[in-house]
Amino acid sequence: MRAVTFQAPGEVLVEEVPEPELVDARDAIVQIEATGVCGSDLHIYHGRVQIERGFTIGHEYVGTVIAAGEDVRDVQIGDRVLGCFQTACGSCFFCRRGWFHKCDFSRTFGHGAALGSLPGTQAERALVPNADLVLRKVPNGMSEDIALFAGDVMGTGYHAVEQSGLAPGDVAAVLGLGPVGLCAVQAARAVGAAHVIAVDSVPERLAMAESFGAEPVHLSEGDPRAAAREATDGRGVDVCIDAVGDPRALELALRLTRKCGTVQAIGVYAERCEVHMGLLWIKALNLHSGHANVIGHVDSVLEMMSAGLLDPSSLVTHHMSLDEAPEAYALYDRREALKIVLKP
Amino acid sequence: MRAVTFQAPGEVLVEEVPEPELVDARDAIVQIEATGVCGSDLHIYHGRVQIERGFTIGHEYVGTVIAAGEDVRDVQIGDRVLGCFQTACGSCFFCRRGWFHKCDFSRTFGHGAALGSLPGTQAERALVPNADLVLRKVPNGMSEDIALFAGDVMGTGYHAVEQSGLAPGDVAAVLGLGPVGLCAVQAARAVGAAHVIAVDSVPERLAMAESFGAEPVHLSEGDPRAAAREATDGRGVDVCIDAVGDPRALELALRLTRKCGTVQAIGVYAERCEVHMGLLWIKALNLHSGHANVIGHVDSVLEMMSAGLLDPSSLVTHHMSLDEAPEAYALYDRREALKIVLKP
Amino acid sequence: MRAVTFQAPGEVLVEEVPEPELVDARDAIVQIEATGVCGSDLHIYHGRVQIERGFTIGHEYVGTVIAAGEDVRDVQIGDRVLGCFQTACGSCFFCRRGWFHKCDFSRTFGHGAALGSLPGTQAERALVPNADLVLRKVPNGMSEDIALFAGDVMGTGYHAVEQSGLAPGDVAAVLGLGPVGLCAVQAARAVGAAHVIAVDSVPERLAMAESFGAEPVHLSEGDPRAAAREATDGRGVDVCIDAVGDPRALELALRLTRKCGTVQAIGVYAERCEVHMGLLWIKALNLHSGHANVIGHVDSVLEMMSAGLLDPSSLVTHHMSLDEAPEAYALYDRREALKIVLKP
Amino acid sequence: MRAVTFQAPGEVLVEEVPEPELVDARDAIVQIEATGVCGSDLHIYHGRVQIERGFTIGHEYVGTVIAAGEDVRDVQIGDRVLGCFQTACGSCFFCRRGWFHKCDFSRTFGHGAALGSLPGTQAERALVPNADLVLRKVPNGMSEDIALFAGDVMGTGYHAVEQSGLAPGDVAAVLGLGPVGLCAVQAARAVGAAHVIAVDSVPERLAMAESFGAEPVHLSEGDPRAAAREATDGRGVDVCIDAVGDPRALELALRLTRKCGTVQAIGVYAERCEVHMGLLWIKALNLHSGHANVIGHVDSVLEMMSAGLLDPSSLVTHHMSLDEAPEAYALYDRREALKIVLKP
Repeated sequence: MRAVTFQAPGEVLVEEVPEPELVDARDAIVQIEATGVCGSDLHIYHGRVQIERGFTIGHEYVGTVIAAGEDVRDVQIGDRVLGCFQTACGSCFFCRRGWFHKCDFSRTFGHGAALGSLPGTQAERALVPNADLVLRKVPNGMSEDIALFAGDVMGTGYHAVEQSGLAPGDVAAVLGLGPVGLCAVQAARAVGAAHVIAVDSVPERLAMAESFGAEPVHLSEGDPRAAAREATDGRGVDVCIDAVGDPRALELALRLTRKCGTVQAIGVYAERCEVHMGLLWIKALNLHSGHANVIGHVDSVLEMMSAGLLDPSSLVTHHMSLDEAPEAYALYDRREALKIVLKP
Repeated sequence: MRAVTFQAPGEVLVEEVPEPELVDARDAIVQIEATGVCGSDLHIYHGRVQIERGFTIGHEYVGTVIAAGEDVRDVQIGDRVLGCFQTACGSCFFCRRGWFHKCDFSRTFGHGAALGSLPGTQAERALVPNADLVLRKVPNGMSEDIALFAGDVMGTGYHAVEQSGLAPGDVAAVLGLGPVGLCAVQAARAVGAAHVIAVDSVPERLAMAESFGAEPVHLSEGDPRAAAREATDGRGVDVCIDAVGDPRALELALRLTRKCGTVQAIGVYAERCEVHMGLLWIKALNLHSGHANVIGHVDSVLEMMSAGLLDPSSLVTHHMSLDEAPEAYALYDRREALKIVLKP
Repeated sequence: MRAVTFQAPGEVLVEEVPEPELVDARDAIVQIEATGVCGSDLHIYHGRVQIERGFTIGHEYVGTVIAAGEDVRDVQIGDRVLGCFQTACGSCFFCRRGWFHKCDFSRTFGHGAALGSLPGTQAERALVPNADLVLRKVPNGMSEDIALFAGDVMGTGYHAVEQSGLAPGDVAAVLGLGPVGLCAVQAARAVGAAHVIAVDSVPERLAMAESFGAEPVHLSEGDPRAAAREATDGRGVDVCIDAVGDPRALELALRLTRKCGTVQAIGVYAERCEVHMGLLWIKALNLHSGHANVIGHVDSVLEMMSAGLLDPSSLVTHHMSLDEAPEAYALYDRREALKIVLKP
Repeated sequence: MRAVTFQAPGEVLVEEVPEPELVDARDAIVQIEATGVCGSDLHIYHGRVQIERGFTIGHEYVGTVIAAGEDVRDVQIGDRVLGCFQTACGSCFFCRRGWFHKCDFSRTFGHGAALGSLPGTQAERALVPNADLVLRKVPNGMSEDIALFAGDVMGTGYHAVEQSGLAPGDVAAVLGLGPVGLCAVQAARAVGAAHVIAVDSVPERLAMAESFGAEPVHLSEGDPRAAAREATDGRGVDVCIDAVGDPRALELALRLTRKCGTVQAIGVYAERCEVHMGLLWIKALNLHSGHANVIGHVDSVLEMMSAGLLDPSSLVTHHMSLDEAPEAYALYDRREALKIVLKP
């Protein structure tokens, strides 16, 4: 079958790869009908996340179950499904506590040997281990463009909000309006944030955040700290979501947040950096980090999408065919797209 | 000054009563500009809740601060304010834990000696003890009809949802679509309920619930249990709010709710009654009861109202003058009104 | 192999039954070394819980793994293990939320066709489905008499405390000092209850509760309500655990508990009964019910047992051989034992 | 009256100061019977926390109420009381949420104009604002040496544990065994930690931690990371309390803690420093900081002390008279004491 494979930094290829086969009684095979290109894919494309040459990439997907092991119970052959970007075992210390994202035996689609050697979903078909945990049926009437977000980007935006402890009536700030930040804006509003201050320096992204109900504030031309004070009688925001993953964003987040508030660092951090611990201490802040527990949240996200409370479809800027993957990656790399959906 | 006083079951009077005076350094006096007639007032009107003849009734109010003790800090003379229906001391065992509704020294407006001998707000002016806890400024641009709800009915609807533990994406049922039930419908949607099943037998109330985003189900002509199953793959609703306060409603709530779910009995219960404890046990349910912690929630409710996430103004069916209070009570008693606002 | 089977109300038999066999890749077979007789077994013995004639009973067990399917990962042949009294699938709606006790596909050992046709553990060997979730290794140095409690009685006592929301420094009351109530006393103290009022009418049980750090109060000769008031400046206890399962116990629990407190009804209720909903409402109480989430708590319980914070071994009043099961049941039925351990 | 005043770095004096007087109706005056010297006092003594020359210092105290404003309700003249190290207003945004430590109008005893100009308690008498929130009666039979800890050091150790989310059966690590760290060890055990790894480099402190039920591990001669792995099947500790306030302690804390665990930085941080955000992200950690909510926890702490679950009396290494304060500070500065109690 055809699949998008990593070749070298800056180079992906659509080539023939072996068909997936059921290995375990809980596996399923999904015929891919739509698969997204994500910011994480770009890390691979840039060579910052290193994977094997020729490994199939991609981890956002919607499709139809075409084969299932005998222990698969909740999805059946013929079901239209969406899936999470990683798997979980369902019974380790972390899974037993519902922390599926930190499962000791998790495997991530399309991330090479380092994350479990699970071929990606930018392909005609994909093997899905532990299908009952990883897959969900696409609710009736939900478009592929929406469903595709449940198992990754919207799951991540929702996770950021949920972990932050945002309460109804709170004021939130979201720093960084890439797809995750924009989804966090939507999620914050959907769970009752009275006010969301959305910070970025790209006008189109600010405009989209505004269309989702946020107050857009340009990072340098506006004044995020003044906006936070104004929305909160001078206290600072209740929660701040750092969807950037940069020490300057983190510093701003610590500044914007009120005493006893939470900074949710959903953006990727990989190294040591300077953090204003004095601010954390004097303001009694909570700083939470890590990637999203998508499996833990996918049911809620799907229900909210199905009810129209979350609708990320306007983030999809491009539909392309799987064969156009090289162009898609180049275009995404030039930051000309928010979300590209590939169709095999 | 003029005030509405209880005389006898079925009889209220607008008469002259003494002016309120500041007693404590934390007191304020509010010039009433709008005051509601509430279901609790009807309990007094019916003689079920017994108070002294001639006692001023009413506990929903919006107005302007015209006097304040020296320790009042957060509101000032001239501020337009709304208030909560009860006071709290702010320092007892219960207040220290944020359970202001069960404050050991709480007083309720307009409920006679049994609840603290605090004259009601259906009057030209009212004394408000512990003003910093009980009053809030009316946000700019908010109408009286909306603000009036923050300190009682919407605070109660919100409390029901908050205490139920409803999570985003959940399916809720609300039994009983009086003002509290209708506010609970709004609150449930505003905090991310994917689906709200609203049950009553009055077509107008069902229609209003539908306009708030609920699925209306007629108690007898429809099939609430089927609706709950259908919305949840047969599991039952995640939370059920009993806004009736009747054993039959409670039984239905226990039936509708899924395993490990919560029944929030916000409707008033005063006596022993038969409860299907077998259902509670086999489904591992949580049953929560009690009146609302309005002081604890008023900030969140106001923020959400101010942001347009909650808007109870359509519940106001009648505006009348304070002098028309006898007609207002008679009309409310005939169930011809959802919410009557009186203006002195 | 030999096993204890139900024959008729009041009659159990030790007879030859078929050997268990691995069916699923996640199954294990355990050579039973100790198995308890439990209050739930007595319900079967009395015919109140109806099961098939000849069905093997029992659900408390410690033993050694002698066979394991290929997908079993966390326990291996030769491991000494203890197990939970019920199984769970690990991936249904309820398991994904950690509510393993209400798993849609749960099976309970030794409870006949109604609860999943899973033969009991009062036998020489037992089949254990989904072994990674259900079994745990016996920590080094832990006696059988202690380990046996982790997967049932202590798990239940701990669950009652955990679900009640008891906070460190709280005052708790435990009504009913059977094995579950006594374990709840221990668990309450181990998590920081400052004071536990233990109520029963059997002097030996009161004495044992006292040895676990509780204040014993005789139900009729003492005054539980006075004791609750005295321990709490008159407020009432923070949480009350009803380990009886009787309307009178529930009424007492509602009386003993302070405003905004929790009544945890861990005792079995099967039917409708009169409940003082007026008390629930006026005191704003939380009433939680249902059997224990033993799988969800077994890790914590084991760690606390291993650290000596929980030690139920003094509850074991009798050790007998499996062949003596008929005498054991008769003796237990006469309430002459707290916990009987049978050894095949 | 006599009081200990700050004069210059390294110099305190016992001198005559004016008597305290009631100012507000909620004030009380306490005749001090015992007052502690605390690590925070040392920051003043060292000149790192700058206060006015001649300002009375000290903030740990036990005594007897000798005067009370008319609005003081819960303590009366003649009551033996202990108090919290800071005051709170009870009605601001933060107090309403129970975050008394971050009250917008809080004042700290003995910290000069920067923290509210509230004279300290190392004096014969002290003014206590908002006495109902700040003071508690000393439970019958509790020694001064124990009671003194409730409003500061034990309150802080308890806060660290409570905020960390430590669950019963968890494994905790405590870094830094000064008085706060040692109290955290006690608190962790008292709420059900199965295992506490206590890290320091002072043998006496390690020995004391061991006497409180911890496993002592020497920072450099031992191997904290190996100890954490060994106690947790290699996962890392569930929560780690950094009671040091140093980037190296924080780095160790991030290393010791398992995925999805919590690092509670109770030690003081005042500046920017390097933090391994990569570890926070990849392990999905929670980092909480800030000083303790002593008012919020004092009820629980007192109940646990009264029940014998917490007993910090062995931390008191010296009893001296108030007049010996200069020697006491010098001795404490030389790290020859854990806790010095002064008696006027």
